[in-house]
Amino acid sequence: MDKPLISHHLVDSDGSLAEAPSEVPKVGILGSGDFARSLATRLVGSGFSVVVGSRNPKRMAGLFPSAAQLTFQEEAVGSPEVIFVAMFREHYSTLCGLSDQLSGKILVDVSNPTEQEHLQHHESNAEYLASLFPTCAVVKAFNVISAWTLQSGPRDGNRQVPICSDQPEAKRTVLEMVRAMGFTPVDMGSLASAREVEAMPLRLFPGWKVPALLALGLFIFFYAYNFVRDVLEPYVQEGKNKFYKLPVIVVNTTLPCVAYVLLSLVYLPGVLAAALQLHRGTKYQRFPDWLDHWLQHRKQMGLLSFFCAALHAVYSLCLPLRRSHRYELVNLAIKQVLTNKSHIWNEEEVWRMEIYLSLGVLALGMLSLLAVTSLPSIANSLNWREFSFVQPSFPPQSTLGFVALVLSTLHTLTYGWTRAFEESRYKFFLPPTFTLTLLVPCVIILAKGLFLLPCVSRRLTKIRRGWEKDGSVRFTLPADHSLAQKTSHV
Amino acid sequence: MDKPLISHHLVDSDGSLAEAPSEVPKVGILGSGDFARSLATRLVGSGFSVVVGSRNPKRMAGLFPSAAQLTFQEEAVGSPEVIFVAMFREHYSTLCGLSDQLSGKILVDVSNPTEQEHLQHHESNAEYLASLFPTCAVVKAFNVISAWTLQSGPRDGNRQVPICSDQPEAKRTVLEMVRAMGFTPVDMGSLASAREVEAMPLRLFPGWKVPALLALGLFIFFYAYNFVRDVLEPYVQEGKNKFYKLPVIVVNTTLPCVAYVLLSLVYLPGVLAAALQLHRGTKYQRFPDWLDHWLQHRKQMGLLSFFCAALHAVYSLCLPLRRSHRYELVNLAIKQVLTNKSHIWNEEEVWRMEIYLSLGVLALGMLSLLAVTSLPSIANSLNWREFSFVQPSFPPQSTLGFVALVLSTLHTLTYGWTRAFEESRYKFFLPPTFTLTLLVPCVIILAKGLFLLPCVSRRLTKIRRGWEKDGSVRFTLPADHSLAQKTSHV
Amino acid sequence: MDKPLISHHLVDSDGSLAEAPSEVPKVGILGSGDFARSLATRLVGSGFSVVVGSRNPKRMAGLFPSAAQLTFQEEAVGSPEVIFVAMFREHYSTLCGLSDQLSGKILVDVSNPTEQEHLQHHESNAEYLASLFPTCAVVKAFNVISAWTLQSGPRDGNRQVPICSDQPEAKRTVLEMVRAMGFTPVDMGSLASAREVEAMPLRLFPGWKVPALLALGLFIFFYAYNFVRDVLEPYVQEGKNKFYKLPVIVVNTTLPCVAYVLLSLVYLPGVLAAALQLHRGTKYQRFPDWLDHWLQHRKQMGLLSFFCAALHAVYSLCLPLRRSHRYELVNLAIKQVLTNKSHIWNEEEVWRMEIYLSLGVLALGMLSLLAVTSLPSIANSLNWREFSFVQPSFPPQSTLGFVALVLSTLHTLTYGWTRAFEESRYKFFLPPTFTLTLLVPCVIILAKGLFLLPCVSRRLTKIRRGWEKDGSVRFTLPADHSLAQKTSHV
Repeated sequence: MDKPLISHHLVDSDGSLAEAPSEVPKVGILGSGDFARSLATRLVGSGFSVVVGSRNPKRMAGLFPSAAQLTFQEEAVGSPEVIFVAMFREHYSTLCGLSDQLSGKILVDVSNPTEQEHLQHHESNAEYLASLFPTCAVVKAFNVISAWTLQSGPRDGNRQVPICSDQPEAKRTVLEMVRAMGFTPVDMGSLASAREVEAMPLRLFPGWKVPALLALGLFIFFYAYNFVRDVLEPYVQEGKNKFYKLPVIVVNTTLPCVAYVLLSLVYLPGVLAAALQLHRGTKYQRFPDWLDHWLQHRKQMGLLSFFCAALHAVYSLCLPLRRSHRYELVNLAIKQVLTNKSHIWNEEEVWRMEIYLSLGVLALGMLSLLAVTSLPSIANSLNWREFSFVQPSFPPQSTLGFVALVLSTLHTLTYGWTRAFEESRYKFFLPPTFTLTLLVPCVIILAKGLFLLPCVSRRLTKIRRGWEKDGSVRFTLPADHSLAQKTSHV
Repeated sequence: MDKPLISHHLVDSDGSLAEAPSEVPKVGILGSGDFARSLATRLVGSGFSVVVGSRNPKRMAGLFPSAAQLTFQEEAVGSPEVIFVAMFREHYSTLCGLSDQLSGKILVDVSNPTEQEHLQHHESNAEYLASLFPTCAVVKAFNVISAWTLQSGPRDGNRQVPICSDQPEAKRTVLEMVRAMGFTPVDMGSLASAREVEAMPLRLFPGWKVPALLALGLFIFFYAYNFVRDVLEPYVQEGKNKFYKLPVIVVNTTLPCVAYVLLSLVYLPGVLAAALQLHRGTKYQRFPDWLDHWLQHRKQMGLLSFFCAALHAVYSLCLPLRRSHRYELVNLAIKQVLTNKSHIWNEEEVWRMEIYLSLGVLALGMLSLLAVTSLPSIANSLNWREFSFVQPSFPPQSTLGFVALVLSTLHTLTYGWTRAFEESRYKFFLPPTFTLTLLVPCVIILAKGLFLLPCVSRRLTKIRRGWEKDGSVRFTLPADHSLAQKTSHV
Repeated sequence: MDKPLISHHLVDSDGSLAEAPSEVPKVGILGSGDFARSLATRLVGSGFSVVVGSRNPKRMAGLFPSAAQLTFQEEAVGSPEVIFVAMFREHYSTLCGLSDQLSGKILVDVSNPTEQEHLQHHESNAEYLASLFPTCAVVKAFNVISAWTLQSGPRDGNRQVPICSDQPEAKRTVLEMVRAMGFTPVDMGSLASAREVEAMPLRLFPGWKVPALLALGLFIFFYAYNFVRDVLEPYVQEGKNKFYKLPVIVVNTTLPCVAYVLLSLVYLPGVLAAALQLHRGTKYQRFPDWLDHWLQHRKQMGLLSFFCAALHAVYSLCLPLRRSHRYELVNLAIKQVLTNKSHIWNEEEVWRMEIYLSLGVLALGMLSLLAVTSLPSIANSLNWREFSFVQPSFPPQSTLGFVALVLSTLHTLTYGWTRAFEESRYKFFLPPTFTLTLLVPCVIILAKGLFLLPCVSRRLTKIRRGWEKDGSVRFTLPADHSLAQKTSHV
């Protein structure tokens, strides 16, 4: 009769408790560092009996959980069927003396090569281990989990453990063990995938590299543009010293441009993709690679846009704190008194500021809601209909984000007011900065308006429900065109 | 001997690895859209062998994971025992030609009807599928999971998958498969529940509808009230043009009223419920429906209150940025100079502003802590005693929220100062707006004070530990009355 | 043949569905309060058949899920093998009449004693229950899960359920049941651990007590210091009334000191620990207890620092709103007019404020990123290399946090400018407050600079990869010194 590693037989047919296996199963760990310790803690907590083998067992006393047996390497590999090799690659060869005892067992490679090691060696650590011990079944697992996550327990987010191996039954054994420890195993195929699995933790915020560089590039461009217009031109043309504007004011007129352009770039690929589907007449053709990558980076670009918008808000609120602001106010009052004016009031200026400030606060509020719903815990507690309301995932449109884009556009237009038409605002023939930022958003808003026209909307819905321009599928369109929202589900 | 779909037998009694099944189990998917693709990806990653059937297999090449077999529908339904039907309802009938091959298998209905389809058809999609294939066991599952969540893996929040079916063994099979894919299955009963399960994703932020409408209603009421007092009355009585106040100032005096009233409405039902329990003398009677719904919406009302308070803070901080503020300051300086005053200082006004600003910032700080601890990831990492410290769940009281309510009350009272008693503040005989908002919070604070009196506190504790006014249970009260905090646990 | 509680046999070797057990397994619950109700809801949702026993079954009708059977206690304990005792400790003895029927079954103690009960009784509730029913197997479980979490389902964070029992097979049965309900069981050993397990929920934010007291102490110290310098000294020396500064200005010069000192205390233990390892020449010796506790509280101190910094930002932004600010501006304008100055401008003052404001905003931005990445959902979605980039876990350094510390230091230095050298700034011979705060951060920055020197860096890397000053291990150092980042992994 089978004696399973974890007993799932709780109640026999006659209602009595099932017999428990008399032996307690053992799992072995070779190594004595942080990761070996976290691994031992989690295995003990999940109900396994653990034996740890090290070169110097006495030294580890006190650092490892008391329920784990500590012994020399030779004794540790005797009884367990599954052995975790928690060592650096350069020490694998020291285990060759144990080849005989290890024969026929499952070795789990948990190593995490550094970037230099990854580039230096052509074969992955797992394949190297497999070449040293051809009689063992090598499984790659756990390298993406940090020692801290292992010890505190799998919480949200990173509980997925990629697993790969050449032997399916060894892989299945480790897969079950990973589940028993509370993690979610993901089968990545054969040991040839090990190199890719080992590269996973090396990527530092992979999805953020391009959006961050883009944001930086936009910042440098707009900062230079504003510097030329607001600081250099008065200095060159009129000899005025406005260099004190560099730390706060120029930054504060640059950040909103970056935020606004990034936000529009979040919604542009959706418009391009819809236009492409309309043109091709089918949804089954792949998008060009650049469009695919652009679509995948939208969330990061949106979050960077929110971060820049929030910084812009804080800088703006800081403006009245500055000594220069105080001096400007006092100088204005002095000037009014000296010219015998008793009351100043420019109704148009007053209304302009009230309106564009209010719109700015509302736009920031919308962006905060978008940012908060991006958090993994909230994003995953929304069902799909709520999620398409909030996030810009294609094909469903994001209503909340589009409202934020419209509010930001109104904020920019009201800030601009009539400045695009005043000649004094053109320094060195360069137009006011805000005019540069308005191009892409206006294109997007126009395109979205076009997509709402009945003829275009109807065709787009048909395509998303599976119709093809040159296909042979008999297709009937349900009467409700709002299916455009729903079409991604199947 | 049984050959399970997922092998749980890892180690035999003699210590050797158990024999693995020689066949790889198959799961079938009918359909070729986004959801079918995400389903295939997750099933392959969880260790299943997947075969996908479609009308046009060649078209899908490149879009599906490489480990999944792509073939025509007729071949796909041959070997698997469990088949996911990832198609639109209108295409179910096209499968009737495969009835013979599908006989005796488990069909999983993952469809998500739109609102219009949901209203149009009287029977759910799952029951319709069951009527088309009476020899199959139909199980409803996965309709609440979006394609994105399926593909990226179950993270926090929405990992729960409601399952219902008329056949218990088919339901159990799918329940195990759901667990193996990393999700948490929830048994919803028989297939008659399918209609309710299909309605789940259609609800757009269901718990938020009433609180949002309430907040909007409060905003409109207070905005109109402030408009009449601050803009209309000066215009009618004195001909002054204060319309520039509409975008920012009137909004900024409306938002705190909405936030404050909402916050008090979060704590009022707790007080009413405690009063009801005291009156009835038992905790075992149900509350009236309106009180029950009110108690359930408290978290949403609290978050809306925080959002309005945060917007109020940003609008307030924007006040010195406005051109009108600058003109007012300059005009004040000019006036002082022209009337030969050399120094202005109103000590009482200064103290009033310093105090109520400081209280406002502290109240906002408390509300931020409440909002942050509402986030799913943090809320669930608190144990029950910490949670009752923070959140207003009845019966445990929320200490932090009550402190926020008290601080907001002090902020409002200090802002008001003596204005409720100055005749000039009554426009059209309407009292200052802040007086309207103080009613409910003061009732709550008085009631909480009453509940702290020994006789009342003692009786409430008895009731919460199971005592009944007209019950026959022998009841002994532990000496410690602070059990009032603890009583919800059993 | 075994009839498991949950069937894992889905497909037999010949491809047909496995036979399902004909009986539906039963789980019993004794009790009728909130926790019993939540437990019943979750068990029913996980596929178990539940029978609930109470003293007064009719009273519970309508409160419990319809799928659960409600009956008297005597009937409820008849068929189930596992019975949850969801009652208060003082009622355990009332079950003694059922001893015969309970014999040989598994009793699960879910009780949560209050602090007073915990101190009053010497043995834990579980051990007391075991002494009342010596023929039963008592298992302690679920006491750390709140009724709300049980009912809404295990989400992120707190899904871990500590389990302990003297009987291994009973413990394993309950362990499997906990897994089936979607939670992650953690084996805590024998029933002797029950007292420790029962103490777990009583700790109110355990990790926060010391950091909160520290922050409060710092606040009181700096507030008193600033009070003496800014309010008392002008009053004593010059008779000026500056007491209006107490609510906002003195608070606003105290909060940044608290935030800055806390932030430096987050990075100091890392420096001390590295110095200790260098001195001892090994990484295998335990740190002193005080250093260990300090290292564990770093995250809480960092979050408190961010909270104080955010409050400081809001208070600073409030400064222009105050009536005193308005009066000061107007008085300054009046003074200028009366002394016939037509234009005031202090270039050095202007630059000083622009720079230190800008640095302050950037430092706050960095701290916000640190705080956001502390959220459990985000922290756990980062892989280990990203995590060490962000968080100050030793040995990996936190780059982002160190940048925040440097920016804060520059912000403080620029705010200080030349004030440390002006005699007028020394009130009662006390130096300006910011000078006190600069001590620890400068030590940390110097030490980090020292650790970057090649000779020191090389030795530290060797130690972290396992080298010992007096060890006998042959050690070869890979050419790449950047392994210092990686060393914690094994």
